[in-house]
Amino acid sequence: VPAAFADRWIRGSRRLGHPLCVGIDPHLALIPTAFRSGAMSPGAKDTATAVERWCLALLDRVAGRVAAVKPQSACFEALGPAGLEVLAHVLGEARARGLLVLLDAKRGDIGSSAEAYAAAYLAEGAPFACDALTVNAYLGLDTLEPFVAAAAGSGGGVFVVLRSSNPGARDLQDLPAPTQPVYERLAAALGTKAALLRGPETEWSGLGVVVGATWPEQSRRVREILPRSLFLVPGYGAQGAGARDAVAGFLPGPDGRPEGGLVSSSRAIGFPPEGRDADALGWERAVDRALDAAIADLTATLRRGRT
Amino acid sequence: VPAAFADRWIRGSRRLGHPLCVGIDPHLALIPTAFRSGAMSPGAKDTATAVERWCLALLDRVAGRVAAVKPQSACFEALGPAGLEVLAHVLGEARARGLLVLLDAKRGDIGSSAEAYAAAYLAEGAPFACDALTVNAYLGLDTLEPFVAAAAGSGGGVFVVLRSSNPGARDLQDLPAPTQPVYERLAAALGTKAALLRGPETEWSGLGVVVGATWPEQSRRVREILPRSLFLVPGYGAQGAGARDAVAGFLPGPDGRPEGGLVSSSRAIGFPPEGRDADALGWERAVDRALDAAIADLTATLRRGRT
Repeated sequence: VPAAFADRWIRGSRRLGHPLCVGIDPHLALIPTAFRSGAMSPGAKDTATAVERWCLALLDRVAGRVAAVKPQSACFEALGPAGLEVLAHVLGEARARGLLVLLDAKRGDIGSSAEAYAAAYLAEGAPFACDALTVNAYLGLDTLEPFVAAAAGSGGGVFVVLRSSNPGARDLQDLPAPTQPVYERLAAALGTKAALLRGPETEWSGLGVVVGATWPEQSRRVREILPRSLFLVPGYGAQGAGARDAVAGFLPGPDGRPEGGLVSSSRAIGFPPEGRDADALGWERAVDRALDAAIADLTATLRRGRT
Repeated sequence: VPAAFADRWIRGSRRLGHPLCVGIDPHLALIPTAFRSGAMSPGAKDTATAVERWCLALLDRVAGRVAAVKPQSACFEALGPAGLEVLAHVLGEARARGLLVLLDAKRGDIGSSAEAYAAAYLAEGAPFACDALTVNAYLGLDTLEPFVAAAAGSGGGVFVVLRSSNPGARDLQDLPAPTQPVYERLAAALGTKAALLRGPETEWSGLGVVVGATWPEQSRRVREILPRSLFLVPGYGAQGAGARDAVAGFLPGPDGRPEGGLVSSSRAIGFPPEGRDADALGWERAVDRALDAAIADLTATLRRGRT
């Protein structure tokens, strides 16, 4: 069994000095000209091949520079069965490049269906093996158990959506229930389970939570409730949140630098506007610049946040 | 564009006289002896072939006897890329046999990711085209829009999980928020959208909700809040709820017989104990008997419920 996900993430991000995680969201309409082939229709085999080329080229840019990538399952599913073959290949190629892979699939179901999802993504020998998976807990805490059990057995992580980055996050997550909002109640309920995926080296827990960068105040409240759970923080970059908001739930690590989460950026890295109609080399340079900028932004913010 | 999902379902189930929908949940450990091949390991190609044979044989048993089937996506994902090829094939074969297909995938995400899921399952020409999809609304009402828009364009249905059939349904769905539980608040919020997927013929709406058969009292409350939304009712049969509880949210149709939902049964139909180690013909007979029994049980219950 590999080390616990939380230890692997914290170790990697400490070494690199930043918490950036690059999202891999191959929306067909955004695939740069240099990678396109033909009409790019969802069912076509050469469309899947074009998407795969872009994914692998992006992995080559980010390997060694970030500790984790976050593929978005929806984009691969939209390509049909050929897209799922690409996903399996990309997951393997990312891990072969030393990247941690957090699959963003927001899965959740009851009993034997949850077990099947855990077998698909988190169990030892899973066909879509990843290091961590995002899950949805609306169906109840019992529905998390198969995911946590599989992750405990494989050194994996599980990230429960608490507070999504969209405006509609308010609709259910903020309902007063009755003395604190639903997402805080969910956070409190997860607290008792966090020990199950705690990394012995760093004492961070890989039973993490998704808290959008667009909600810094809520991030701080969740951090009070869950002092050692990793945060997955979407919404940094293209969705408009800055680095300070993205690390609002971080806590000082051993050297004083704040840590405790993955800050995810997708479009800003993989689809930089200057790379859209450039040749392959032009796209690579644009990605490298975008990566440099995000890393510098986060590093400077964390340096200022040093205690 | 085909007719609205709600009209197609109500028309089909009125003709057959019952609301049974058969779940297709190919858990590897349950595949009957007659269909097994070799060691049945998730990654193996012949395992996917064995699962496909069972799925197609089950479709042959239920075609013409039920109006809809409900494949469980998790079971196909657990088989890896080959399993998703089987899923696409089974979806097409079910529709070719005149069955409505409600894919149970509990998808949900924000913005462009929700759009990608809608493109994968509900849009015109989707690679995993189905007639309706289960979705999770925890991330907010804005996250439902791409699903509803795609369904409106393709004559599809969308079933939002309100009240799952498991014991843990209480954890979040029952939180007092503050004058009514979360699931009732969600039901109320869906009310304004139900008209978007209303069938002109029957006036039922294909913006449906999932309400477990294990919660009859809650079903009646949801029915008051959502008078014309179809219910998808899991938990009948193997999960222990009887026919009376399963139709608790139904309302009298034009001939007085209660209608307004799909009552789903998976294991009890596809994996009858007497069929487990029988030959193919023995399994077929066991499935036919299980189907007869469930249909008779529901038909008798609805006859007693006639106004």
